[in-house]
Amino acid sequence: MEQIKSDIFLSKLSTIAENVNKYLDNWLPQKEEEYSANLNEAMRYSVMAGGKRIRPALTVLVAEGLGYKNEANYRAGCAYELYHSASLIHDDLPCMDDDDLRRGKPTNHKVFGEATAVLAGDCLMLMPYEWFARLSEYGISSEKIAKIIRIANEAFTYRGVIGGQMLDLLYENKKIDQKTLESIHLGKTAALLRAPILTGAILADATDKELDSLKTYSQKIGLLFQIIDDILDIESDTATLGKNVGRDSALGKSTYPALLGLDGAKDYAKKTYQEAIISLEPFGNRLSDLKALAFYLLNRKS
Amino acid sequence: MEQIKSDIFLSKLSTIAENVNKYLDNWLPQKEEEYSANLNEAMRYSVMAGGKRIRPALTVLVAEGLGYKNEANYRAGCAYELYHSASLIHDDLPCMDDDDLRRGKPTNHKVFGEATAVLAGDCLMLMPYEWFARLSEYGISSEKIAKIIRIANEAFTYRGVIGGQMLDLLYENKKIDQKTLESIHLGKTAALLRAPILTGAILADATDKELDSLKTYSQKIGLLFQIIDDILDIESDTATLGKNVGRDSALGKSTYPALLGLDGAKDYAKKTYQEAIISLEPFGNRLSDLKALAFYLLNRKS
Repeated sequence: MEQIKSDIFLSKLSTIAENVNKYLDNWLPQKEEEYSANLNEAMRYSVMAGGKRIRPALTVLVAEGLGYKNEANYRAGCAYELYHSASLIHDDLPCMDDDDLRRGKPTNHKVFGEATAVLAGDCLMLMPYEWFARLSEYGISSEKIAKIIRIANEAFTYRGVIGGQMLDLLYENKKIDQKTLESIHLGKTAALLRAPILTGAILADATDKELDSLKTYSQKIGLLFQIIDDILDIESDTATLGKNVGRDSALGKSTYPALLGLDGAKDYAKKTYQEAIISLEPFGNRLSDLKALAFYLLNRKS
Repeated sequence: MEQIKSDIFLSKLSTIAENVNKYLDNWLPQKEEEYSANLNEAMRYSVMAGGKRIRPALTVLVAEGLGYKNEANYRAGCAYELYHSASLIHDDLPCMDDDDLRRGKPTNHKVFGEATAVLAGDCLMLMPYEWFARLSEYGISSEKIAKIIRIANEAFTYRGVIGGQMLDLLYENKKIDQKTLESIHLGKTAALLRAPILTGAILADATDKELDSLKTYSQKIGLLFQIIDDILDIESDTATLGKNVGRDSALGKSTYPALLGLDGAKDYAKKTYQEAIISLEPFGNRLSDLKALAFYLLNRKS
C-alpha cells in the first residue's frame, strides 16, 4: 500500500521537477547576456545539471497541500534550488571537499576554473533574494515576503547551512558523538528542507502551530536524508549515485554507520521515519505527499 | 575653501566610522556562540579590521542630508559593509587575486585557512538580507524593505559586483579599451556605492528624479574612486596604502594610467570629479557632504 502511494508520489515529484526545470531555464539569466556571459554559463551548468528538485517540490507540495495554488510557489521554491546549487559548487571546491564529480558530471570548478566557480556560487547564493522580492509580482504581500526572507536567511547562514558546513570541516578526522553529528546535519541538511517547507506553508497562510509541526517534520526528514546518504555512500556504487562513493570515509567524516554500525543506522532511519509521519498528524490527509516523501527518502537507492 | 570643507567632512566621516564600528561589533554574531564559533571569529576578523566605512557612511549621510534621522540608517548602511568585507575575502583567495595582505593585516584565508575564508565570505554576503529584513524593527515599511532588497541584489550579483569581478578576471592580461574598463568598474566599484546611496535616499523618501541624480553621482564617484586607486597603486607605498602596491601591473590588470598615461589619468579624475559635483545640483546644499566626499576621493592618499 505504502509502495503504491510512493509510486504515485514519485510520478507527481517528477512532474513537478519537469516544471521546475522549465521555470529555472526561463528565469535564470541568459548565458548570452554580454556583461556576465561566462558567469551565467557557469551558473546554468550547475543549476541545470538536474537532481531531484526536492527543495522546490517541497514548497509546491506544502502550499498546494494546504490549498494554495499560484506560480509564486514555484518562484519561491526554485530560489532554494539556486542556493542549493551554490552550496554544492562551493562544497566541491579543492579547498573544501575537493570533489571532481557531481550528478555524473565534472564539478563546476573542473569545467570553469576555481575563480569562476567561487563567483558563480556567490551569485547563486544571492539570487534567491531577488526571486523572493519578485514574489510581489504574483500578488504576495510585502509582509509575507519579509517573513520568507527571514526564514531563508536563517537556513542559509551561520545558524543553518554555512554553520553546518563549518562544523563539518572542523570535525573532519575527529571522533564525534551522535549529538554533534546531528547538529551538523540539522545545519547542513535539515535547514535547507525546513525553509522551503515553511515557505510553502507561509504562502498558504498556515497557522503558527502548523508551522511548528512542519519544523519537527523538517528536522526528522533532514536527519533521515542524511542517515540514508551515509548508508548509500557505503552500499551504492558511483554509477547509481552519480557521485563518487566512499568519499566520507576517505575524508575521515563521521557517519551514522560509523557511529551506530550499518544495522544500527538502518534501525535509526526507520525510527526517524516514524517520527516524521507522527509530526504530520495535525494535518490529517492534507499533506499526504509529505508522508510519501518520507517513505521515499527511507527507501531511496540514489 | 574646499580644503576646509573637506577637513570638516573628514572629521564627520570619522565620527560616523566610529559609530559604524560600535554597531558592527554589537550586531555581528558573537564569536562565543558555540555552533559557529570559528566562523563568527573569521567574519569578525575581516569586518572589524577597520577601513574607512565609506559605504555605511553614504547611507547615513544621504538619509540625514535629506532630513531623515533613524538608527535604521546605520542598520542598512552596515549591511553593505558586511557584503563589502565578504567580497574582499573572496577576492583575496589564492584562486582569485591571491593576496596575503589587506588593511595592513594578513588576509582572511592566511589566518583561518581557505575553506573557512570561503564560508565566512559566503555568510557575510548573505547576512545583509537579514539586516535589511530587520529594518522593520525600526519602523521601516515592508514596501521600502523590498525596494532596498532589490537595489542591494542588483548591486551584489551578476549585474553588479560579481559580474564586474568576473569581467575583471576574464580580461586579466588582455589589452582592453576604456569602455570595457569602465564597465568592469561600474560593476566592481560603482554598484557598491550606488546601493548604499540609494538606500539612504529611499529611507528618506526621495523622489524618483532624485534617485536618478544620485545614480549619476554614484557612477561618477565609482569611476573616480577607481581611477585614484589605480594611481595610488603606482604612486603610494605599501605602508601608507595598507596593502601591497604594484599588484595591478603584476597581475596584468588594465588600469587608467596604463590606458591614458599617469597625467591623462589625473586629468580624467578631475573631469569625473566635476561631473559628480554637477549631478548634485538638484539638491542645492542638502547633500554638501557628498560634494566633500567627491573632493576627498579626488585627493586621497590611501
